[in-house]
Amino acid sequence: MSRRYTGQNVTLLRLARQGEITEAMRIVADAEGLSAETVRDELAAGRLVIPANVFHQHLKPIGIGDACRVKINANIGNSAMESDTPCEMAKLEACIRFGADAVMDLSTGANIDGIRRAIVDQSPLPVGVVPLYQAMEKVENTAALNADLLLSVIEEQAKDGVDFMTVHCGLLLEHLPLIKTRTTGVVSRGGSLIAEWMAIHKRQNPLYERFDDVLDIAARYDVTLSLGDGLRPGSLADATDAAQLAELNALGELVRRSWAADVQVMVEGPGHVPLHEIERNVVLQREICQGAPFYVLGPLVTDVAPGYDHITSAIGAAVAGWRGASFLCYVTPKEHLGLPDLEDVRQGIIAYRIAAHAADLARGRQGARDWDDAMSRARYAFDWEKQYALAMDGERAREMREASLKESGETGAHYCSMCGPKFCAMRIAKRIGRETPTAE
Amino acid sequence: MSRRYTGQNVTLLRLARQGEITEAMRIVADAEGLSAETVRDELAAGRLVIPANVFHQHLKPIGIGDACRVKINANIGNSAMESDTPCEMAKLEACIRFGADAVMDLSTGANIDGIRRAIVDQSPLPVGVVPLYQAMEKVENTAALNADLLLSVIEEQAKDGVDFMTVHCGLLLEHLPLIKTRTTGVVSRGGSLIAEWMAIHKRQNPLYERFDDVLDIAARYDVTLSLGDGLRPGSLADATDAAQLAELNALGELVRRSWAADVQVMVEGPGHVPLHEIERNVVLQREICQGAPFYVLGPLVTDVAPGYDHITSAIGAAVAGWRGASFLCYVTPKEHLGLPDLEDVRQGIIAYRIAAHAADLARGRQGARDWDDAMSRARYAFDWEKQYALAMDGERAREMREASLKESGETGAHYCSMCGPKFCAMRIAKRIGRETPTAE
Repeated sequence: MSRRYTGQNVTLLRLARQGEITEAMRIVADAEGLSAETVRDELAAGRLVIPANVFHQHLKPIGIGDACRVKINANIGNSAMESDTPCEMAKLEACIRFGADAVMDLSTGANIDGIRRAIVDQSPLPVGVVPLYQAMEKVENTAALNADLLLSVIEEQAKDGVDFMTVHCGLLLEHLPLIKTRTTGVVSRGGSLIAEWMAIHKRQNPLYERFDDVLDIAARYDVTLSLGDGLRPGSLADATDAAQLAELNALGELVRRSWAADVQVMVEGPGHVPLHEIERNVVLQREICQGAPFYVLGPLVTDVAPGYDHITSAIGAAVAGWRGASFLCYVTPKEHLGLPDLEDVRQGIIAYRIAAHAADLARGRQGARDWDDAMSRARYAFDWEKQYALAMDGERAREMREASLKESGETGAHYCSMCGPKFCAMRIAKRIGRETPTAE
Repeated sequence: MSRRYTGQNVTLLRLARQGEITEAMRIVADAEGLSAETVRDELAAGRLVIPANVFHQHLKPIGIGDACRVKINANIGNSAMESDTPCEMAKLEACIRFGADAVMDLSTGANIDGIRRAIVDQSPLPVGVVPLYQAMEKVENTAALNADLLLSVIEEQAKDGVDFMTVHCGLLLEHLPLIKTRTTGVVSRGGSLIAEWMAIHKRQNPLYERFDDVLDIAARYDVTLSLGDGLRPGSLADATDAAQLAELNALGELVRRSWAADVQVMVEGPGHVPLHEIERNVVLQREICQGAPFYVLGPLVTDVAPGYDHITSAIGAAVAGWRGASFLCYVTPKEHLGLPDLEDVRQGIIAYRIAAHAADLARGRQGARDWDDAMSRARYAFDWEKQYALAMDGERAREMREASLKESGETGAHYCSMCGPKFCAMRIAKRIGRETPTAE
């Protein structure tokens, strides 16, 4: 059961299929209130992944899949225009502090290697990357990309201990004509680069042609593949269109090939999708990808609210999680406008923890409502300290209440400035309690 | 068709049933892209209300109901601990500026009359109130409330031009025992006062006993009744429980009595409801209340995120609107913590406009997606000014993007600091467009 690097397949999927239960499976089982056997069996069936690179030192493994609580990912990373290593380390701190389950370093600016290594070194959360971004830093232009370069970057990042990687292997040459009629073309950064390369060279996606080599690297380090949806819709107009579905079909094939190679795999999904099409998107993914965990970006349920896309997308994410998505990639208020700062990261994480928890509640996940019940009891007891302790972001809740009380010059413990003492329904309800006979 | 005060029934419902089409019906028809006949017929059937007091001078009437876009209400008003008339007028300004469809003045503090009159005088939006709050200001304690006092306050407020009123007429003496086992008792302010009064006097709800008198006042001024859900759940634990459903049944009876008196009526709903119970709540309300418009508060899909309840509730509101609720009462970030300030009002309004629009899109409301499509075209064209002009809160979007660009020292028009110029998927996608053959 040792998972040191051996140059052989060391994936948890392989071990699970051999019937073994590892430390990582036990940790996930404990965290989820599942038996270790269930975690092993779900892993073996491909319905659960535990992204855990053999070289990620301080990882606290998490499970992503049907049997587990819905998880959330926070994207951090710099761009050519903003941020540096200290800034990104502060964002990692925020991710840990505010409760992200995983983090992706999507740096595309200076010092990509340094930032990634610092994040993997410091992060107890699984770390994801998109190797294509670094590959682009090594070439003059998109045309100069090639398969060997891409594979060498993938291996380099795997060696650094990255737990999961978005690889845009399912966007194929034959999909390009389907883009032409779209309202917003290609909005995936990686997808657009692969598409451009194929358009220039009139050749098939090198990551598709060399998918066996990708699998070989993933197997040796136990990198979980996150099959990128390069053609995810960037607008409601493009939602669930022919381009998106053509790529999804290709991803279904790649899931089967990953499983055949004992490589852990999940599948990325949209994007921008109206509320009534979300369930259909989840159902299609589950059918086509045979239950491989679905990792969605939002989806945003409208295009018209830049500055508030943590909200437009938390609505979609909650419904996606309820209907079966296992992993929700956050969107921050800065989406479509700029690189998120620390406050954006915080807002995005809390919005997505809300969506994930709402989904767990809706799925009737065992024990999920205990948290809400504890909060509601604390609320009814006017136990403010307990409410802050239980709140998703207790610090912000305390600041808000105290700012209100300060304005009004009161410090009353048994009400707040919303209603004041005379109109506090819960205060009044307690008086009723003493007057009312019990139901017979 | 004149609707001056005559001491007789002057409601739009009565006129619609007589086959008349009024100016207000035409305005609503134009705004909704419906024929005036449809608006009249929907009004006559009770499935649509146009809250429009004969004494509200500057009202721009709106329609609330199945056939109309989903509408949102913003609650403003002071408490004994915070705010005054100028503050509340500033909130009214914010409601108009950021796009609320209606506003409720829930003042419970000083100068209730003055604030309400100033709001009705200035507001083109329909104005709602809860007369019980003012009644409480006229008595020493809850026990001293009585039916005549309540009716006199209702008439006084109707005379002031209030368009809709929350009246807690359906919370009955026999419901009190059902509260006992609840986790959070009664969380409606009005509901708690009525419940306390009944518990003290061991007598039936005076607003229920005198409902015919309430109807008489409503008919003379055309006040739309909003039947309050005094027993709405204040926690997931209490969602869709016996207390809530017992009151809902009583509300169904009051809807029929309102219609029999040609009085416009809508029905208020929860509250705190997990995602998977929202549709059931809407379906039950529609059945029991025979299609009278449903006016929901959120619902909040989890109890654990104080400080972010505009988000917990926008998720529920979007799903409620999709499933058939017609009117969404906003919840601000300050919910459970304090009285909302101007920024909270802004956050609450935008979160709810997102929810309402997401619902309209999901219901396939004609023309709803044009807005999204226009935004997406502007986005793909990098037309930032058009994006700001189309955005729900363009000012905030502009601030966010410009703050990011300033930090990076760039002013590039064809990308943002999220990805920078090299990794902008939409820039790249346009290059692909020039390389790719059209689909055959």
